[in-house]
Amino acid sequence: MIQGGAGTSTNMNANEVITNRALEIGGHAKGDYSFINPNDHTNHSQSTNDTYPTAIKIALAFSLQNLLGELTLLADAFAAKGREFSHVIKVGRTQLQDAVPMTLGQEFNAFATTLREDVQRLEDAVALLGEVNMGATAIGTAINAPVGYKEAVIKHLRTITGLELVTAGDLVESTSDTGVFITFSGALKRSALKMSKIANDLRLLSSGPQAGFGEINLPARQAGSSIMPGKVNPVIPEAVSQVAYSVAGADVTVSMAVEGGQLQLNAFEPIIAHSLFQSITWLERACQTFRVNCVNGITANEAALEDTVARSVTVITALAPVIGYAPAAQLAKQALATNEPIADLVVAQGLLDPVQLEEILKPERLTGLPADHGVENTADNAEAVPRDEMTSEIPVVPSPE
Amino acid sequence: MIQGGAGTSTNMNANEVITNRALEIGGHAKGDYSFINPNDHTNHSQSTNDTYPTAIKIALAFSLQNLLGELTLLADAFAAKGREFSHVIKVGRTQLQDAVPMTLGQEFNAFATTLREDVQRLEDAVALLGEVNMGATAIGTAINAPVGYKEAVIKHLRTITGLELVTAGDLVESTSDTGVFITFSGALKRSALKMSKIANDLRLLSSGPQAGFGEINLPARQAGSSIMPGKVNPVIPEAVSQVAYSVAGADVTVSMAVEGGQLQLNAFEPIIAHSLFQSITWLERACQTFRVNCVNGITANEAALEDTVARSVTVITALAPVIGYAPAAQLAKQALATNEPIADLVVAQGLLDPVQLEEILKPERLTGLPADHGVENTADNAEAVPRDEMTSEIPVVPSPE
Amino acid sequence: MIQGGAGTSTNMNANEVITNRALEIGGHAKGDYSFINPNDHTNHSQSTNDTYPTAIKIALAFSLQNLLGELTLLADAFAAKGREFSHVIKVGRTQLQDAVPMTLGQEFNAFATTLREDVQRLEDAVALLGEVNMGATAIGTAINAPVGYKEAVIKHLRTITGLELVTAGDLVESTSDTGVFITFSGALKRSALKMSKIANDLRLLSSGPQAGFGEINLPARQAGSSIMPGKVNPVIPEAVSQVAYSVAGADVTVSMAVEGGQLQLNAFEPIIAHSLFQSITWLERACQTFRVNCVNGITANEAALEDTVARSVTVITALAPVIGYAPAAQLAKQALATNEPIADLVVAQGLLDPVQLEEILKPERLTGLPADHGVENTADNAEAVPRDEMTSEIPVVPSPE
Amino acid sequence: MIQGGAGTSTNMNANEVITNRALEIGGHAKGDYSFINPNDHTNHSQSTNDTYPTAIKIALAFSLQNLLGELTLLADAFAAKGREFSHVIKVGRTQLQDAVPMTLGQEFNAFATTLREDVQRLEDAVALLGEVNMGATAIGTAINAPVGYKEAVIKHLRTITGLELVTAGDLVESTSDTGVFITFSGALKRSALKMSKIANDLRLLSSGPQAGFGEINLPARQAGSSIMPGKVNPVIPEAVSQVAYSVAGADVTVSMAVEGGQLQLNAFEPIIAHSLFQSITWLERACQTFRVNCVNGITANEAALEDTVARSVTVITALAPVIGYAPAAQLAKQALATNEPIADLVVAQGLLDPVQLEEILKPERLTGLPADHGVENTADNAEAVPRDEMTSEIPVVPSPE
Repeated sequence: MIQGGAGTSTNMNANEVITNRALEIGGHAKGDYSFINPNDHTNHSQSTNDTYPTAIKIALAFSLQNLLGELTLLADAFAAKGREFSHVIKVGRTQLQDAVPMTLGQEFNAFATTLREDVQRLEDAVALLGEVNMGATAIGTAINAPVGYKEAVIKHLRTITGLELVTAGDLVESTSDTGVFITFSGALKRSALKMSKIANDLRLLSSGPQAGFGEINLPARQAGSSIMPGKVNPVIPEAVSQVAYSVAGADVTVSMAVEGGQLQLNAFEPIIAHSLFQSITWLERACQTFRVNCVNGITANEAALEDTVARSVTVITALAPVIGYAPAAQLAKQALATNEPIADLVVAQGLLDPVQLEEILKPERLTGLPADHGVENTADNAEAVPRDEMTSEIPVVPSPE
Repeated sequence: MIQGGAGTSTNMNANEVITNRALEIGGHAKGDYSFINPNDHTNHSQSTNDTYPTAIKIALAFSLQNLLGELTLLADAFAAKGREFSHVIKVGRTQLQDAVPMTLGQEFNAFATTLREDVQRLEDAVALLGEVNMGATAIGTAINAPVGYKEAVIKHLRTITGLELVTAGDLVESTSDTGVFITFSGALKRSALKMSKIANDLRLLSSGPQAGFGEINLPARQAGSSIMPGKVNPVIPEAVSQVAYSVAGADVTVSMAVEGGQLQLNAFEPIIAHSLFQSITWLERACQTFRVNCVNGITANEAALEDTVARSVTVITALAPVIGYAPAAQLAKQALATNEPIADLVVAQGLLDPVQLEEILKPERLTGLPADHGVENTADNAEAVPRDEMTSEIPVVPSPE
Repeated sequence: MIQGGAGTSTNMNANEVITNRALEIGGHAKGDYSFINPNDHTNHSQSTNDTYPTAIKIALAFSLQNLLGELTLLADAFAAKGREFSHVIKVGRTQLQDAVPMTLGQEFNAFATTLREDVQRLEDAVALLGEVNMGATAIGTAINAPVGYKEAVIKHLRTITGLELVTAGDLVESTSDTGVFITFSGALKRSALKMSKIANDLRLLSSGPQAGFGEINLPARQAGSSIMPGKVNPVIPEAVSQVAYSVAGADVTVSMAVEGGQLQLNAFEPIIAHSLFQSITWLERACQTFRVNCVNGITANEAALEDTVARSVTVITALAPVIGYAPAAQLAKQALATNEPIADLVVAQGLLDPVQLEEILKPERLTGLPADHGVENTADNAEAVPRDEMTSEIPVVPSPE
Repeated sequence: MIQGGAGTSTNMNANEVITNRALEIGGHAKGDYSFINPNDHTNHSQSTNDTYPTAIKIALAFSLQNLLGELTLLADAFAAKGREFSHVIKVGRTQLQDAVPMTLGQEFNAFATTLREDVQRLEDAVALLGEVNMGATAIGTAINAPVGYKEAVIKHLRTITGLELVTAGDLVESTSDTGVFITFSGALKRSALKMSKIANDLRLLSSGPQAGFGEINLPARQAGSSIMPGKVNPVIPEAVSQVAYSVAGADVTVSMAVEGGQLQLNAFEPIIAHSLFQSITWLERACQTFRVNCVNGITANEAALEDTVARSVTVITALAPVIGYAPAAQLAKQALATNEPIADLVVAQGLLDPVQLEEILKPERLTGLPADHGVENTADNAEAVPRDEMTSEIPVVPSPE
């Protein structure tokens, strides 16, 4: 794959294969170039400098379809788990610190959502690949390509490939420009890094089994250790992150190759192509193994999660609008120090009556379900007044006199 | 700028400034938080985790406008030079080797085209920034934000900013997701690397003055050397490339920060913001100095360029369809060895008559002008038959017996 | 800082300042260059191309001293915590899964060790900076530098700086070569990434306070959230990681700038210098805040850690050499499922008697303390036979028959 | 190669192969693990976490030997060309602008020098690989490794490998630390980027053949174009640069993998290993093809180079110390504008007499040969006074009154 000459070797190899196949079909001896000549006939009206990048773009577009399929299946797998875990309450975390309650379903659903966004971004990028420079020949001046050639070739290419290909408006620019490969590489990197972030999250959530978060269980895929019996490792998420690091490295390779282009051509297209195809293939396989060998088999430790929420001081956030931020912070500190439940302290200190408290701490209220609704409107909740109608009075938190 | 806490310091600082200004307006002493409290009132229904990323996105969208303006002006400057140099013929180069003729105008016009494409890509990226997570509060569950809040806040934000902002459909996802910053950073990198490629091209074309390409002259901006009198250096293109290297490095910083996000939040948003704002600002300044201090003042060494084309063997490409690739390659070799013009050799060897030759070597035919037409159709040019109607006969290159 | 001309502006600015100061000292009017001229006299025998890179190298060497000092203090701080926590037993983790017991002291001591190695690597790199090209003038041919100049200048520079400077043997090579900056940048990156790894570890170990690892407590430095009262965030480790990402990005910037050098000079030295100085400064500050505002104040949750070890199945590894890997794996599984202590199961199943078991599970034996001794030799432990004398019989694990 | 589990699959695979080979030698059926068991016996006193990184380090050390050999041969090839071209005078260039004269031999010799420095840097890095953690077992606490094991294993490993291996002093640190791989990767990147810089230089120097620098000729390796007959491309240097971009990308992959390590282990060692081995192999092949297929066959266009020096205004630098910087700059400008040789203008304007001028412009004086001597001392050259003895008088440039 790593060749000089901006792909001339590959192009001439293809020309020779095509020529010999044509000779064969025509009843001539292979290699008898007096009938059909790879340079004069098969390459007619063409140059490596238009056919090679065009071929790469078409191949990337096809190659990406497999990745998009796998990425979508992976998102679906997370969404299915999102539904399965929709009733499992847990402590959400920001900066690895206990934050506020949520459901495990919301967490897994977010994985699905974020990957679906990447499917869209990759589709955006692939649309840009459709602009090709066939007819440009050597440097975009169309030397040796007859009038009508570029219109004819794009028409045939569209038919053969079924892709929305268009001829670049400025063929000189298009022949030297490799910007689309940065965009494409960036879109692959984005998907890769998101997959790695999710893989890291799954490793965190399944950490333990005893001295970790222990929220979920990844399916065991192999003996985890040659020395530690019974150990189960998150091998699939680890492989996913490694693929992501490779894709991120490839993006730097592509960037340097793009920057290195000079004048009417980028001589480094072969390493760009190699890097992108490897990234696509590895990501596709990573998606597949992630889904089949990991995500589909994840189970939740529901009882432990519920227990953690019950003990958690994170419910304090829900009380802050009612009792004020500073008193709430004080209360949280006390609960942690004494190990007493927040609810007990609130009632004991007469801050709220048990009925009010129960209302505020209802799980569906805490987790904002259904996801896009925010806190339910209640008679006791002055904030429910639409913001548009809000006056300068802010009723809930009593000013400290 | 580099702060832990995912922006909490910045958010609380803003809350305090807003609070004190509000107190001032309301006739209270600054710092008297018993009337208005930064946490309880100013931050009401908000969290650092929704306001900080939303503020970054809005700021990036505004900040980018300046860059887009400068990038467009830079493209315009190249287009103006493209028109100015539209009649200047020169030798085009691929892989730093003489390729086929073109005009200097085509070369500069390609610079304009390629930068205009980047304006579009940056606009694509900025559109994605419009999705914000106001109303998500801490982790996307909307805890402490009343019903109606997220609709109200987005309405006001759209009015105040004039931007096409929308509330994310999945607030849990949106609160932890930083994918858009990779897309945005990638778009900045793409522009930066293209600018560097152009800067490198200008340095190549202006290399010399005697022992280089010597095709164009960059305006002298300072004494080029403390030891070499009279030396003029391409200082502006050099600065442009250095900015590009910095932007490419920042993209790696952003990528690592994005990958490092965990669970319901990315704690590393501050370095992402810092990197992106620096890249935008530096690129904007690079565009401006590139245009004002370099591109606008470029002149062409027309006589030298014409002379080079006249001596060049690159016209051989135009002859290949008529006399065949292999004989043409032989002829090129001979011309280089003997230093005789190709045209003389062709006529001397009886390959073509002078009239045919003149027709084939007309500059406008060689350079394919007008740019998007390819070679003019002539009675002698069998390839002008549209590809659709082509038969298996390939008439121009006579088969060697 | 970002200037074209490979530093000519900076060099000439320095020449002018020196000249004017000299004029001032000599009793002349500043700016009266008829007495002393910045180019002819102050720059005599010099060129930007030798003075600028030499000045950068000297400045880097000095600048690094502060970083080395802070890095050493940071390592010392970790070592102090290592001693403080030397008796605190905990569960070690590989791949975020419970592995085998260790002490918290071993963990913190490893942080100290790893940073001390980096001090050595940075000192290796700084030694390479000592090779300078004074006397090379424009391109290394020493044009305009008299015989004896290069020997004289290096002698004075060594005296003034106190650094082990040497003149490069091949001045042509030295003038264009920027390889040392990659080495230096790589050493900075190595330190940065290790600091980030440690920062991540501290965030993991302090995750919670309830729904996380909860092993240690980082000192609280600010209110952690504008919405979640009482939340404490690991803001200092987060800042450290962000600095690391920036340093890693700068390494790519430096790499691209180095690769971009052409022929007798690298025109991109200014961005190399800027990137390196920023990385040094940021790392120095990161070390300091890490030590003062975080590491020094870390406390351990000893009781919780001991409790976790007592419940942990990780002691199974110590039993595997005695009862075999496969049976041990089975036992671990059973212990996790039934929540019964491993020790109880072992005795109940008659695999070992309580005395043997107690001996094997002694904490100091499990954690290998003193660190470099491995398991203590006991009469029952056939492996204690030095490997050199081992026969083909492997006595401990009875073959299944 | 991309596996989760930090290499457990590879380690257990090796354990199984070793076990079965041992069974075979001992006359047992392969797979009959009742005699020898892969976990209990072959893996005895070992863990993936010490054997896998140790094996990688040993393999890297061996693998590097081939690269060092090829890199040295490449440097030798450049040095041979340096000697061959030692008498060929040419115009040196900084920032692609004509600077001052030098010899082509100096230029090629600098390529040799710079690569030899990299051989040293790689040897530095390989020395660091010698520190291994055998005896650490799972996390560095040496659990299940008997006293004496680590001393025995390192002794055998040293004997078997012939490498200077040592056991790490802090096995806990050593088991999780992957810093050496950054150092190693950085050294590979440095070599790669230097090779790319040299490849770029060769492409510049061989640009043309007519409309470029045209200083040297690279051996033709293939038809350069499918459309442009006779075109010869610098395919080998292009391949070298592409390898370099790949190695630079791999360095980012390694960096992210190193940063991602957590607590007592880095789970991402497999991608680190894969990236480093690929970089080594590709660089080794790049060195070989660079030397055999390119450097060895380079020829110089001596006549053209001499002619360029004769016409060049770059000799003005040699005159500046005698006539002053500002007048020299004026003269250079005039020479370029009028196309008159500098020498003629100097004599015509009575600035120097022809004898003085000839002395100053002697090629060996201009190029500073022998390379490390600087300008020859002559009676006319006041700067020859050693700097130590210099007084405040600066005699050569007459102050303008």
